Amino acid sequence: MSTPRADGFYMPAEWAPQSQVWMIWPERPDSWRSGAKPAQRDFLAVIRAIARFTPVTLCTSAVSFVVASDALADDSGVRVVELSNDDAWMRDSGPTFLIDGRGGLAGVDWDFNAWGGDEGGLYPTWDVDALVARKVLQMERVRRYATPGFILEGGSIHVDGEGTLLTTEECLLNPNRNPNLGREAIEGMLRDYTGAEQVIWLPRGLDGDETDGHIDNFCCFVRPGEVLLSWTDDANDPNYHYCREALAVLETSTDARGRRLAVHRLPLPAPIHAILESEGGAEGIEPDEHGNPPRLAASYVNFLISNHGVIVPGFDDPMDAQALAILRRLFPENEVVMCPGREILLGGGNIHCITQQQPRP
Amino acid sequence: MSTPRADGFYMPAEWAPQSQVWMIWPERPDSWRSGAKPAQRDFLAVIRAIARFTPVTLCTSAVSFVVASDALADDSGVRVVELSNDDAWMRDSGPTFLIDGRGGLAGVDWDFNAWGGDEGGLYPTWDVDALVARKVLQMERVRRYATPGFILEGGSIHVDGEGTLLTTEECLLNPNRNPNLGREAIEGMLRDYTGAEQVIWLPRGLDGDETDGHIDNFCCFVRPGEVLLSWTDDANDPNYHYCREALAVLETSTDARGRRLAVHRLPLPAPIHAILESEGGAEGIEPDEHGNPPRLAASYVNFLISNHGVIVPGFDDPMDAQALAILRRLFPENEVVMCPGREILLGGGNIHCITQQQPRP
Repeated sequence: MSTPRADGFYMPAEWAPQSQVWMIWPERPDSWRSGAKPAQRDFLAVIRAIARFTPVTLCTSAVSFVVASDALADDSGVRVVELSNDDAWMRDSGPTFLIDGRGGLAGVDWDFNAWGGDEGGLYPTWDVDALVARKVLQMERVRRYATPGFILEGGSIHVDGEGTLLTTEECLLNPNRNPNLGREAIEGMLRDYTGAEQVIWLPRGLDGDETDGHIDNFCCFVRPGEVLLSWTDDANDPNYHYCREALAVLETSTDARGRRLAVHRLPLPAPIHAILESEGGAEGIEPDEHGNPPRLAASYVNFLISNHGVIVPGFDDPMDAQALAILRRLFPENEVVMCPGREILLGGGNIHCITQQQPRP
Repeated sequence: MSTPRADGFYMPAEWAPQSQVWMIWPERPDSWRSGAKPAQRDFLAVIRAIARFTPVTLCTSAVSFVVASDALADDSGVRVVELSNDDAWMRDSGPTFLIDGRGGLAGVDWDFNAWGGDEGGLYPTWDVDALVARKVLQMERVRRYATPGFILEGGSIHVDGEGTLLTTEECLLNPNRNPNLGREAIEGMLRDYTGAEQVIWLPRGLDGDETDGHIDNFCCFVRPGEVLLSWTDDANDPNYHYCREALAVLETSTDARGRRLAVHRLPLPAPIHAILESEGGAEGIEPDEHGNPPRLAASYVNFLISNHGVIVPGFDDPMDAQALAILRRLFPENEVVMCPGREILLGGGNIHCITQQQPRP
């Protein structure tokens, strides 16, 4: 029973070369409205955007295999494979790929409880999702490190590939994940399974994020020593405080190489709200205690870096253009492509949440 | 709408280098007795035998994925992937792989009707099997040539890789396959999709073969210009006549290069009979009109050549040793490995029927 660290493996940064990106076809009627058709249309746009830079593997249920395969039959660089799932969040149910810098590739198969299990988890059973990472790794004939009993979703961590890991206390210290492990034990697992030397803990993620504050919807690395933080100057937005709280942590942190972090800010779009089931939304979407549709955790930070591309969600929001301009400035060597993100957001996440990159070792 | 022939692709001989062998985990209770446990044990032996020479991909239903994966977790060179199916006959539901001699790889996705559709087919629905070839090819990102409306199973053809194809009239001219196509039209399809120049038609396959006389249970190539024919000298065996009929055709045929064929003979094992459901056999196995268990189409010819290995079924029969000796003489450069074949035979076929080789282009 070795660990990735003991075997020389670590999680590379997202900007490291990738051999493919994994995704899952959306279907679940309590996540995706209108038979998932609007979401499927936008997933196709994301797939095609990524495929310009990196081959894509799209996993589907047996039921959807033909429809998805036919839709993508003319898209070179995209393959469709059968792989059962409970929902489409490959970032969280998929493996975390590792490299060893000597041509080796491996993957972590984290235990999975649908973002909280019986204490706030997002669906009643998740046993099919819990096998996704193993199936992906076996399909690639890639060595698998499982962490039975240790719950983690890929969207709750970001790394710089140089020893620094960014996460949130709200998620990783949440008693609905690993109630018997404290901060130190969890840091130990992160070190052993991602190669991190230094863990930077933001107190929480974006307001209303049903993942319990995944970092990938709030803050990410853009290169070693530089992070990008979601931001609002609207003092009435609950995120106003969360952003400043995070900024304070980031500005006083050093990374694993001893660097002070440069913090860039990426504005939030204007508030976007769920669509109630009664108004055409997904099954079970109900008003909040004031009778209003709940606000969704919309964020431009939920983008994917994939080889020479950066695929970022847009929201048909006036802020879209500003977000694009910031990302183009921050990624001058990449092509930044904005894809429709509103339907994916309605399902509960965005482009980073529905993708999982496989590094090219 | 091109064809493999037009694009320079052809089906290589089984002795050409292989990158992997595809199989499917057996489950179906009307094919495999005792919850398929005895067959699964023997499939594992076949998988491990092949994996000594060639990587294996084992496809399983979602239900069996964990059991099969756990069973093979320590077998390097074997991967287990989820891939729905109606039964375990990868030779027949899987693709026929093609090469172009310039590094290209492609595959034919023949239409499939479970060995006869509504006219003698072996199960009532086969829509899941009909997708197996497409799923395999997509998983490998291999170009797919489909033949919608043209029915063929991989076990009904053998090739020498030099333009000669061996088949049976009993199967390919059976009205339960392609009733609207005559011999010439079928030869045209074989030419276009396998690159064959010369088709050698044996009248029929082995007696009682529920595939309608698949060639791969009766006669095969061992190298260009040489075939191996199942044989019996028991004049009371219905195969006595069939073997001589086939020999007469083979001895008067020339192959695509104009060679006369050398015909080697491989004895049949002593008759092996089905196990009735009432005596522990698979669901629905019933006595024949005389009240006896039907005889099964047991044959040593149903072996797989895979790189430096030849994997042949044994039947705990006195003839096993003689069959092994003949194969070792015919394949002096290969290691001939005998695996238990009786349970696979009870399911309706043997090692060649449950495997499909993928050439290394």
